[in-house]
Amino acid sequence: MKLQLALDLTTTHEAIPMLAEIIDLVDIIEIGTPLIMLEGVQAVTKIKKAYPQVEVLADLKIVDAGEHEAKIGFDAGADIVTVLGVSNDATIQGVVSQARRFERQVMVDLITIKDVQQRATELEVLGCDYVCVHTGTDAQEQGHNPLAELALVSETLQQTKVAVAGGIKPTTLPDIILHQPAIVVVGGYITNHPDKRQAVLDIRAGMEHL
Amino acid sequence: MKLQLALDLTTTHEAIPMLAEIIDLVDIIEIGTPLIMLEGVQAVTKIKKAYPQVEVLADLKIVDAGEHEAKIGFDAGADIVTVLGVSNDATIQGVVSQARRFERQVMVDLITIKDVQQRATELEVLGCDYVCVHTGTDAQEQGHNPLAELALVSETLQQTKVAVAGGIKPTTLPDIILHQPAIVVVGGYITNHPDKRQAVLDIRAGMEHL
Repeated sequence: MKLQLALDLTTTHEAIPMLAEIIDLVDIIEIGTPLIMLEGVQAVTKIKKAYPQVEVLADLKIVDAGEHEAKIGFDAGADIVTVLGVSNDATIQGVVSQARRFERQVMVDLITIKDVQQRATELEVLGCDYVCVHTGTDAQEQGHNPLAELALVSETLQQTKVAVAGGIKPTTLPDIILHQPAIVVVGGYITNHPDKRQAVLDIRAGMEHL
Repeated sequence: MKLQLALDLTTTHEAIPMLAEIIDLVDIIEIGTPLIMLEGVQAVTKIKKAYPQVEVLADLKIVDAGEHEAKIGFDAGADIVTVLGVSNDATIQGVVSQARRFERQVMVDLITIKDVQQRATELEVLGCDYVCVHTGTDAQEQGHNPLAELALVSETLQQTKVAVAGGIKPTTLPDIILHQPAIVVVGGYITNHPDKRQAVLDIRAGMEHL
């Protein structure tokens, strides 16, 4: 089980020194959508250059022009790019074929999808590497969490790996790890914590505690 | 009827001199999603600074964290930001309330939505300024065009204005302008044309010819 740290409400200037104290405990660094809006994919390049030993995910949330936009992410050095599950299949195929060309990976974000089980089945056929069950920030504020959808998607997928994101913290981890996702995405709990190293240690302890 | 020129497969370095020869004929410059991925919202700031007399739309395609991401676009100088119609209503409300705070505008992109009429009705209630009927690049390659959806959405909306995008060129304009959209979005036909000023003149002629 890998830990993906989402960098959303920050800049690379702030994030690079912050990461130094926790990088040995993180498997994947996510360059979040707001950070890409703010700085463009040079944010991916900067983080990858600073920490080449760690995988970097560009949360591009592609929804059109799949081949072209995936290339922007991979050219910048991303190991994984994201595409929205609501996209046209042709868009997802474009992202997947670009990933195969670069020998990199694709994560599909299920955000806002109603029938996650049906779409996950289709995404597996399309050859996606990861499917991410994701309760967005705005949905979290309405009291939603990713647990029910995680259960549905986990029992559906055979080859495609499962990632899970949406307000995850130590208290919500026990129910999540029961489903053995390949990737657990944590953002705010770590980045807003006064002691970031302790926050990551708490998350890692929860991930290993079945 | 306004003409929105979409800048997708370019850089601000290339686009700023190119725009000089056509800027008097364009109402809105769209900073396309791939350009924002490449350069971040500084692309918005640069184009707005070069051409302050023209409206600038940031095609952020927001799908979560509506308030926060809309602020990134407006802070950079965008007059209009986009949010995906597939987003959670809370996300759209966040973008709309941020737009009201900045006294700017919101365009909702209907890309990949199946029942555009139903969603357009809901988006009007949410107070969106524009709804954009949009056949994406990848869907265009499968032979789709925005005409049928434009007819449905145009007859549905009362207050909210209609924009239309998706491979529009002089030959497809006559059917489109029958529905009197508030904004016609044109990208590739102009930006790939050897004589860009003539291309814009041809589009403008088609827009005025009912």
